[in-house]
Amino acid sequence: MAMQHLDPRDPRTRHAGPSPAPGSARAGGTPTGDALAGYLRAQATEFLRALRLHRETGTTAGGPNGAAGPEDPVDAARALRRAVRRVSGSLHTFRPVLDPDWSESIRPELAWLSGTLAMEHAYAARLERLLLALHRLSGAVFPAQSALGTAVGGRSAGAGPDPRKADPGTAGPPTHPASPDRGNLTVGAAKAGALLERQLTLARTRAHSTALQALGSSRFHAVADHIAVLASEVPLTSAAATTDLRPLASAAEERLTDAVTALPLVTAGHPYNAEALNHGLSPDPAPHPQDAPWHQVRLLLRLHRYAREVLEGADAPVDVRLLTAGQALDRHRDASEAAAAAAQAARTPRIAPATAYALGVLHADQRHEVEAARFAFQQSWQKQTVGTP
Amino acid sequence: MAMQHLDPRDPRTRHAGPSPAPGSARAGGTPTGDALAGYLRAQATEFLRALRLHRETGTTAGGPNGAAGPEDPVDAARALRRAVRRVSGSLHTFRPVLDPDWSESIRPELAWLSGTLAMEHAYAARLERLLLALHRLSGAVFPAQSALGTAVGGRSAGAGPDPRKADPGTAGPPTHPASPDRGNLTVGAAKAGALLERQLTLARTRAHSTALQALGSSRFHAVADHIAVLASEVPLTSAAATTDLRPLASAAEERLTDAVTALPLVTAGHPYNAEALNHGLSPDPAPHPQDAPWHQVRLLLRLHRYAREVLEGADAPVDVRLLTAGQALDRHRDASEAAAAAAQAARTPRIAPATAYALGVLHADQRHEVEAARFAFQQSWQKQTVGTP
Repeated sequence: MAMQHLDPRDPRTRHAGPSPAPGSARAGGTPTGDALAGYLRAQATEFLRALRLHRETGTTAGGPNGAAGPEDPVDAARALRRAVRRVSGSLHTFRPVLDPDWSESIRPELAWLSGTLAMEHAYAARLERLLLALHRLSGAVFPAQSALGTAVGGRSAGAGPDPRKADPGTAGPPTHPASPDRGNLTVGAAKAGALLERQLTLARTRAHSTALQALGSSRFHAVADHIAVLASEVPLTSAAATTDLRPLASAAEERLTDAVTALPLVTAGHPYNAEALNHGLSPDPAPHPQDAPWHQVRLLLRLHRYAREVLEGADAPVDVRLLTAGQALDRHRDASEAAAAAAQAARTPRIAPATAYALGVLHADQRHEVEAARFAFQQSWQKQTVGTP
Repeated sequence: MAMQHLDPRDPRTRHAGPSPAPGSARAGGTPTGDALAGYLRAQATEFLRALRLHRETGTTAGGPNGAAGPEDPVDAARALRRAVRRVSGSLHTFRPVLDPDWSESIRPELAWLSGTLAMEHAYAARLERLLLALHRLSGAVFPAQSALGTAVGGRSAGAGPDPRKADPGTAGPPTHPASPDRGNLTVGAAKAGALLERQLTLARTRAHSTALQALGSSRFHAVADHIAVLASEVPLTSAAATTDLRPLASAAEERLTDAVTALPLVTAGHPYNAEALNHGLSPDPAPHPQDAPWHQVRLLLRLHRYAREVLEGADAPVDVRLLTAGQALDRHRDASEAAAAAAQAARTPRIAPATAYALGVLHADQRHEVEAARFAFQQSWQKQTVGTP
């Protein structure tokens, strides 16, 4: 029965099952709790499918030495993260129509899972970004896209125990055909690359272990059970069936536009404003505080996008400009973290001056990527505002 | 007599004196050799005035510790360079109407003088640019303009014999009130600043001595004598009085537009194209070869500007867009050389990794200035092309 209370703690709770519950019909196309229930069921189903796939493709899933295939563990992990983000985001935006006890208890668990699953990929992508940048800076001819496409699943474990001893001509024999060839790099760039590869591969390996442990933990099994229930029955409030979701989605959009309004978009719209590298040599070792509002907008943009997905369904046309703006903010985040990783690597004790110099150039390069991403966001956002009647 | 041959070697030579020579009247406003003679006389007079001023303001003229005044040696040196560039450029563009033996013999001498006089200022400006950038990168609040305005004439001789021993809090007590306060810099930035200050101040002091030696040499006195003659009599060819200068000026403009056409302006017009930092870590220690065509355009733009001055006279309106384009190319040149100086400093043996890191950031920052300058040039040049009917 769709009206049964799976959670006895809250009498307001009703669970929307796979078939439409009585009284939950949309009022003249108005998206109500049922639209949310359908969306959450679909995401939960996708989560379970990705989890099964992840288990089937082996416990080396997404590991540093795992082989990449068409339906490989990297894809499965990505699908897992994707579904978790959507469930988590929808729970946030549409909180008022969901059983509060249930959603408040599961949301931190989803955040934990999402964060844990994201780390390995983040380290791999960061290393790839930094090595590509080093090759660009060295003027090496290098098939960037092909390497980028395969290396996340197939990068070797690094260049040896001590990158400072690396020979620029022979440092770290590439174990993957698409690995960047360090033969064209200067001593400094080669050493910087080896140092970053060592540090980020280590971080990635740890993140991989942490993710594997997490996926085997009772904590994860509890989350998975929650999501399994969600795939069949969504714990909505009793008023959800007649609640218009649009004001909740609008509120999410308003939070986004407010945050965008607070961004320094006039500055960002002036090319080469040199803002992003300001304080680049500041004594403060913390990540650039100027980046935080942009990271926040990135999250709010994602929530807005998911809210649109809930309201408009899977068949809704993709808003290209929203997508472009989101990609600019992804690039902003990635470059910001890559710049921080280069700065961090430069604080490694006893590195050679040439290595430190290359890391300084690399840091500044990524900070300019940050600035370029802000410019790209400003451009796409302006278009959006102008284009919307 | 205006028709007398001061140079007996070439019978084609005639010397245009201060008063119009017979037969040299302009044909219906067509600028002929007389316009050039008037221009060269004016520039030669300006050169002699600046030289007198330079001698009067003392032999410490423009030295590292010289005091700056309203009519100071820095101004005098600038006026000297300015006049020499204009005489030299006009001799190049309007070669066919000038006594070839005379102009071919004096042109290398003017190039030598121009180069010798420019070095001291270039090192001072380069150091100032790099220290300002270091402060910007460190996030230090710093009155950039006031320091920039006075430091060329009043910068102290550096931070001591070994910048690696410098304390970031007290490194190099500022001896000039407007000197950047290093107290806000990180260790790396402070050491990098001290290293650059030491190296570039040394180079500047040497350039100052070289310039002083040059100004006291018999070689210089020969050039000065040549220019003194030029102030009263310009050695034109006999055909100069009836030769239309406009085709010669047009040829100079064509050389400019041809060179501009060969620039990668489409790339330069895309903000954040990341071209300027490509090869920034290349094994080749030579200055970026990609900069050379831009430097060449800068020189051709200057020749075009001087040719316009010859044709249109001193009262001609300033072409603001031409000026803007020229300023962008000056900035390009300055940033290019500053970036090279930072890279050069990073090759100093036994520097600390933190110093090398700061120099790497600084190098990349200046290479992005190079890219920004190209963008600015592209923008001003586009306007120019669109604006001209």
